[in-house]
Amino acid sequence: MNGNFGPMEMKTKLVSHLEISRLVLGIWRLIDWNKTHQELLSFIKESVEIGVTTFDHADIYGNHECEAAFGKVTKNNSLLRDQMQLVTKCGIKLNTNKFPERKLKYYDYSASYIISQVEQSLKNLQTDYIDVLLLHRPSPFFNPEEVAKAFDQLKSSGKVNHFGVSNFLPLQLESLQAFVEEPLVTNQIEISAYSLEHFENQNLDYLISKKIRPMAWSPLAGGELLTPKTEKGTRLIQAVEAVAQELGVTQTEQILYQWLLMHPSGIIPILGTGKIERIKTAVDSLNIQMSLAHWFQIYNASTGKELP
Amino acid sequence: MNGNFGPMEMKTKLVSHLEISRLVLGIWRLIDWNKTHQELLSFIKESVEIGVTTFDHADIYGNHECEAAFGKVTKNNSLLRDQMQLVTKCGIKLNTNKFPERKLKYYDYSASYIISQVEQSLKNLQTDYIDVLLLHRPSPFFNPEEVAKAFDQLKSSGKVNHFGVSNFLPLQLESLQAFVEEPLVTNQIEISAYSLEHFENQNLDYLISKKIRPMAWSPLAGGELLTPKTEKGTRLIQAVEAVAQELGVTQTEQILYQWLLMHPSGIIPILGTGKIERIKTAVDSLNIQMSLAHWFQIYNASTGKELP
Amino acid sequence: MNGNFGPMEMKTKLVSHLEISRLVLGIWRLIDWNKTHQELLSFIKESVEIGVTTFDHADIYGNHECEAAFGKVTKNNSLLRDQMQLVTKCGIKLNTNKFPERKLKYYDYSASYIISQVEQSLKNLQTDYIDVLLLHRPSPFFNPEEVAKAFDQLKSSGKVNHFGVSNFLPLQLESLQAFVEEPLVTNQIEISAYSLEHFENQNLDYLISKKIRPMAWSPLAGGELLTPKTEKGTRLIQAVEAVAQELGVTQTEQILYQWLLMHPSGIIPILGTGKIERIKTAVDSLNIQMSLAHWFQIYNASTGKELP
Repeated sequence: MNGNFGPMEMKTKLVSHLEISRLVLGIWRLIDWNKTHQELLSFIKESVEIGVTTFDHADIYGNHECEAAFGKVTKNNSLLRDQMQLVTKCGIKLNTNKFPERKLKYYDYSASYIISQVEQSLKNLQTDYIDVLLLHRPSPFFNPEEVAKAFDQLKSSGKVNHFGVSNFLPLQLESLQAFVEEPLVTNQIEISAYSLEHFENQNLDYLISKKIRPMAWSPLAGGELLTPKTEKGTRLIQAVEAVAQELGVTQTEQILYQWLLMHPSGIIPILGTGKIERIKTAVDSLNIQMSLAHWFQIYNASTGKELP
Repeated sequence: MNGNFGPMEMKTKLVSHLEISRLVLGIWRLIDWNKTHQELLSFIKESVEIGVTTFDHADIYGNHECEAAFGKVTKNNSLLRDQMQLVTKCGIKLNTNKFPERKLKYYDYSASYIISQVEQSLKNLQTDYIDVLLLHRPSPFFNPEEVAKAFDQLKSSGKVNHFGVSNFLPLQLESLQAFVEEPLVTNQIEISAYSLEHFENQNLDYLISKKIRPMAWSPLAGGELLTPKTEKGTRLIQAVEAVAQELGVTQTEQILYQWLLMHPSGIIPILGTGKIERIKTAVDSLNIQMSLAHWFQIYNASTGKELP
Repeated sequence: MNGNFGPMEMKTKLVSHLEISRLVLGIWRLIDWNKTHQELLSFIKESVEIGVTTFDHADIYGNHECEAAFGKVTKNNSLLRDQMQLVTKCGIKLNTNKFPERKLKYYDYSASYIISQVEQSLKNLQTDYIDVLLLHRPSPFFNPEEVAKAFDQLKSSGKVNHFGVSNFLPLQLESLQAFVEEPLVTNQIEISAYSLEHFENQNLDYLISKKIRPMAWSPLAGGELLTPKTEKGTRLIQAVEAVAQELGVTQTEQILYQWLLMHPSGIIPILGTGKIERIKTAVDSLNIQMSLAHWFQIYNASTGKELP
């Protein structure tokens, strides 16, 4: 967990016994990728070969279809499974066409629901264990004591190895950790040069103090940092291009990844692409060496003002 | 402290040696109730008989007259006193007609003032001990070390058995607890389907993590949830009525109480009524079984939007 | 750390082995004071003689010139040095004319930069040790583990005796403290009757709970409380004048200092003046006895409303 200004390793640790890849591949748009069975399998294998071995799922991605589509092509391949780390999430109950009985979307963190969803995820992914299970969102109706019991069962049965959260604020994480014995291993939150919320609300300070490394969803702000539509986005991309030019980098998104990678909190960006070329581009960003001045040049372009 | 979806007991514990009732009767409008001595005594006895045994006072309620009016009718009735738990508060100095020398209302948490106000409350209530003493509001001029000394004296002299706070935010409570040896037993805050502040500012998360159960003042949002005047109130009451209809409940306020009662933080609602019938209605709400989906249906009606 | 309503001592402790003066002299406008060598030396000596023995520097004050100007007149005077406590700060990299290679102002809390700046400060101040080193501002790029290593080195080499922060919020301080063994001794923040931010964001509550005494910069709100330009400032000065009149105090700024001095968090105001007479006026404010009602009269004038 150091500010890192040079080439980085592709492997990294969340906690002592949990090695993942420095970049994670997000699976939420897998259905949209429109890949054949063989194309998807090749894509996953290539991703693993170039070092992106950690895959970020959620039970609900693709209206509950992504996990199963992934599992279908990776099943019966224990060699591949051993090389991968699977992250998935639970807790959100969608009211899509698959659940006509539900009148609204809501959250369920009852022990029974957490356990049943993990069992469903295991079936979908056609695997025996989840590497990291995340609670998808903080809930106004949340019983950490009950969640801790579910975690205990899932851990002792070998179904889940590690636990974390997503989109939690400091006292929400603190509240869960108060009841869960093992250290929570990550908080997956939105972080990008565009989205500075967790720099501003002390959440990154909190995570650093607890040695919990964040994963960053939407590291490119959902495309806003590639094809900006806002004044802020435009300002940012100009700054990013200026830095890229100084460093002789032709792919601006590499600057945006390195901006996250070098942060002292040890941010792990989640890629959203289905194109192996763009994964390679992201992987290459680990070799970029940016200065602290560059980092702040981009930070200031985001806030639109000088530091105090 | 579990999310509770079924019939509840009328007795509950704040901490191991402190049993109170699942619903508390607030005394702040006692003067407005306009009851004769005999009416008030009967009302209090009936309340105790149906299980609402905890009474929430403050030194200042009714311009300092409520405690004494209550004490006048309950005195010399040690049997009744043994069945009751008395909560009272201190710290606010009113500048009403009773205190012509005061130019403004302000807060005083000096040890000497806390102790003298407790002694006054004991006189007013005509009892030997307070079950729970609360600090009425957080103050910008607050010395927790000095407050802790006052608590020590009040505890060792037997004048107060337990201590808590009201309207405190997490770091305010944390600051007091850092100096007070015994665990603070409650934080009395505004919580209702209408007032979601403490869901949103992480205070409920904090209280859960510390196993401190909140008491909820204005659980019906001061009538706004019975006869709404705002768009939000109207939206809410429609959701509450829909849930009530599904559950075959005719009194919508029972839904509003159960919405609080079932929350994992173990919320203890404070009733404000002087009518025994409405207390019975509230007590009956303990038997209602709402689903998590119902809970969120009401929550969403309050925020006016879907969950993320 | 007690609410203090009476005459105060000029000496006070930040932590057990660190005695400073109850009022601190800020050095950031030293260049503007336009004093000759002899005038400056006399001013510093007089300040020390009347008990204001702690001087607040930063590497960047006066475009990096204040420390050296101070050191130039105090050097070779070990008797004077023994009587003084020197506070200085680091972490901000200015992009002034002195640093033509810098394209922007940014923050640098790398171990190497912290150490090199302290060494520069020692040279400038012509002394062997800094009494208290502060990190000037919280940074979105902050590695507390690395900062802790720098602190360790500076401490063990005898170059810095104590460490603190400035402008930090609770979780930012908490994060640094998690890695630094010795207790951080202060958080220098903006506090005045005009600027209530740290009363409202729970920072003062936090500092009290950790027994960390704040230093207050801009205790007179940069002159706004002497010659107000805003409605709020006008409202405040009227309240302050009313209190002054009641107490027979002719210098309203004494009321403003005492308002800070009496606060239970043990606030240490930082004076900004280069006039010995105004320092004496401030020192005399330690003898003023204000009541709690007075304190709230001024507080309410600042918020513009009654307490809840």
